Amino acid sequence: LPQPVPQQFASDRRASGIEGLLALVGPELQRVNQTILERMQSPVTLIPQLAGHIVASGGKRLRPLLVLACARLAGYRGDRQIRLATAVEFIHTATLLHDDVVDKSDLRRGQATANAVWGNQASVLVGDFLFARAFQLMVEDGSLAVLKCLSDAAATIAEGEVGQLLTANDPETTEAAYLEVIRGKTAALFAAACEVGAHVAARPAGDAAALRAFGDNLGIAFQMTDDVLDYTAKQATLGKTVGDDFREGKVTLPAILAFQRGNAKEREFWRRTLGRMEQTPEDLGQAIAFMEAHGALSESIARAGTYAERATETLARFEPSPSRSALESTARFAIERVY
Amino acid sequence: LPQPVPQQFASDRRASGIEGLLALVGPELQRVNQTILERMQSPVTLIPQLAGHIVASGGKRLRPLLVLACARLAGYRGDRQIRLATAVEFIHTATLLHDDVVDKSDLRRGQATANAVWGNQASVLVGDFLFARAFQLMVEDGSLAVLKCLSDAAATIAEGEVGQLLTANDPETTEAAYLEVIRGKTAALFAAACEVGAHVAARPAGDAAALRAFGDNLGIAFQMTDDVLDYTAKQATLGKTVGDDFREGKVTLPAILAFQRGNAKEREFWRRTLGRMEQTPEDLGQAIAFMEAHGALSESIARAGTYAERATETLARFEPSPSRSALESTARFAIERVY
Repeated sequence: LPQPVPQQFASDRRASGIEGLLALVGPELQRVNQTILERMQSPVTLIPQLAGHIVASGGKRLRPLLVLACARLAGYRGDRQIRLATAVEFIHTATLLHDDVVDKSDLRRGQATANAVWGNQASVLVGDFLFARAFQLMVEDGSLAVLKCLSDAAATIAEGEVGQLLTANDPETTEAAYLEVIRGKTAALFAAACEVGAHVAARPAGDAAALRAFGDNLGIAFQMTDDVLDYTAKQATLGKTVGDDFREGKVTLPAILAFQRGNAKEREFWRRTLGRMEQTPEDLGQAIAFMEAHGALSESIARAGTYAERATETLARFEPSPSRSALESTARFAIERVY
Repeated sequence: LPQPVPQQFASDRRASGIEGLLALVGPELQRVNQTILERMQSPVTLIPQLAGHIVASGGKRLRPLLVLACARLAGYRGDRQIRLATAVEFIHTATLLHDDVVDKSDLRRGQATANAVWGNQASVLVGDFLFARAFQLMVEDGSLAVLKCLSDAAATIAEGEVGQLLTANDPETTEAAYLEVIRGKTAALFAAACEVGAHVAARPAGDAAALRAFGDNLGIAFQMTDDVLDYTAKQATLGKTVGDDFREGKVTLPAILAFQRGNAKEREFWRRTLGRMEQTPEDLGQAIAFMEAHGALSESIARAGTYAERATETLARFEPSPSRSALESTARFAIERVY
């Protein structure tokens, strides 16, 4: 069995602009990491083995960091955020395990995925376990507002993932359909993680809505940037293979824009490669060339930038503070990863 | 796409002894069925399509019936049990969807499984959606006791399912390990469904524990009987192929007992067929012959009967009533399905 790699990748941390968050809540994040290790235990030892593989494989812990920083921004100084940040990371980990089954991928963050090592069956079931454990943690916390926030997010995530299946192989997917998918599969959990910060601090509904909007816009910016990186990043930076989305027939914003702006011959290229999945080794290079010719990558980056700006603006209602600055930096750097 | 089959199979109802439950809470079950249809809706239309396929494919609704009957037994006369019975059925349906992925099975209750029609990916994600929706329903209800009961059950179910993976292909699996697996994968949700009845009625902890013990023992009796039926039932009665467990290398009580009681040559038969999965078309018949020679099937039925009796005994603390009688009949008939 492969050994867990407990340290986070320094490159990941730099590339995502979360230094500010780590400076703010680093000791709390260590407590979250400790709680993750404690609460993924089970007498069925395959569960912590498999969960540990993905939990420890170099993730940035961005969602728990958002819980911690937003709780801090909202003025909360107790302990509840530790357990709830753990719950959020467990939900995220469960979706990763189920994604790996869905995508038949065998590499994540540069390492073999759990399903490649232990099989689809165990990945599905350990994902289910972590999802259930996340709800047990929320029940221990005892806030129905938090339970509502995260059970709503979980339903929306599943809707987004199913929506992604439905838009796959369809190069005529609209930008609106794409936005709906990434709002579900990515932004919903970012939004919920940030909103939890307001709930533990018992802030009024307006503040909860603002933190939720911050997470929503940040999540969209983050996913759009990821979708650009899938066509542009070096493997060493991204920790996954360039061109995954293309090879899987996933239709993301750069491909949507290139299809819309392409001529008849180009559109047939997209229908053949993404629609009918008839691909040659040269097609990825050709796809990137078409995208660059139509400014599809730079336009996608610009749109991500707009969402990142909106995220920052939603924080204006809070007094300037180190936590506000750290969250603003996270939004700014979410898109700077592409440069 | 296949059409949902909304009616329940009359044979199923007769075979499981749930007539008493239906006579008791039939109108409430209709409200549960209506709530199931309403709450599995989503703007992502593949979700209700796929969920409807499995929800409507002739299940007995045994777990919702237990919620309804136990709430009645506990003296509750309000409306909360409708929504919570729906939540329990959604958790059950989610595990069926994920089981179908796990088992690579393509027939359930005589119909094509969802994953055979729509693919593994959609089955995993729609299962996730139903699981999340179950928690949304519980949050709407607002009882932390119910949320604890069912999130604990969900974690235990996942542990039982992973345990089943680990005991597969191992004919030396102990009876204790088998009991642990079925207690998790089946009895945990039966126990939680019954306990919910005590919570909505705000009964004292002793009553909640008794209803929980009833469900636990009933679930074990029910699963042991299913495991016998997998070797003895006619396809028309069971709605699934005889010998599924054998062909999948699942190690259940009849095989465990036959292995323990077999001679060296027989043990090599079990190691070859269940362990190394080297099977010929004649092996299922030979397996059943070995089981019969050692009384493994009748002994399994007798053990199921012991658990059914224990279930009945736990109801003694409640006053005699139509609901108590109906629940007692359910326990009695759980094992009479094999005759």
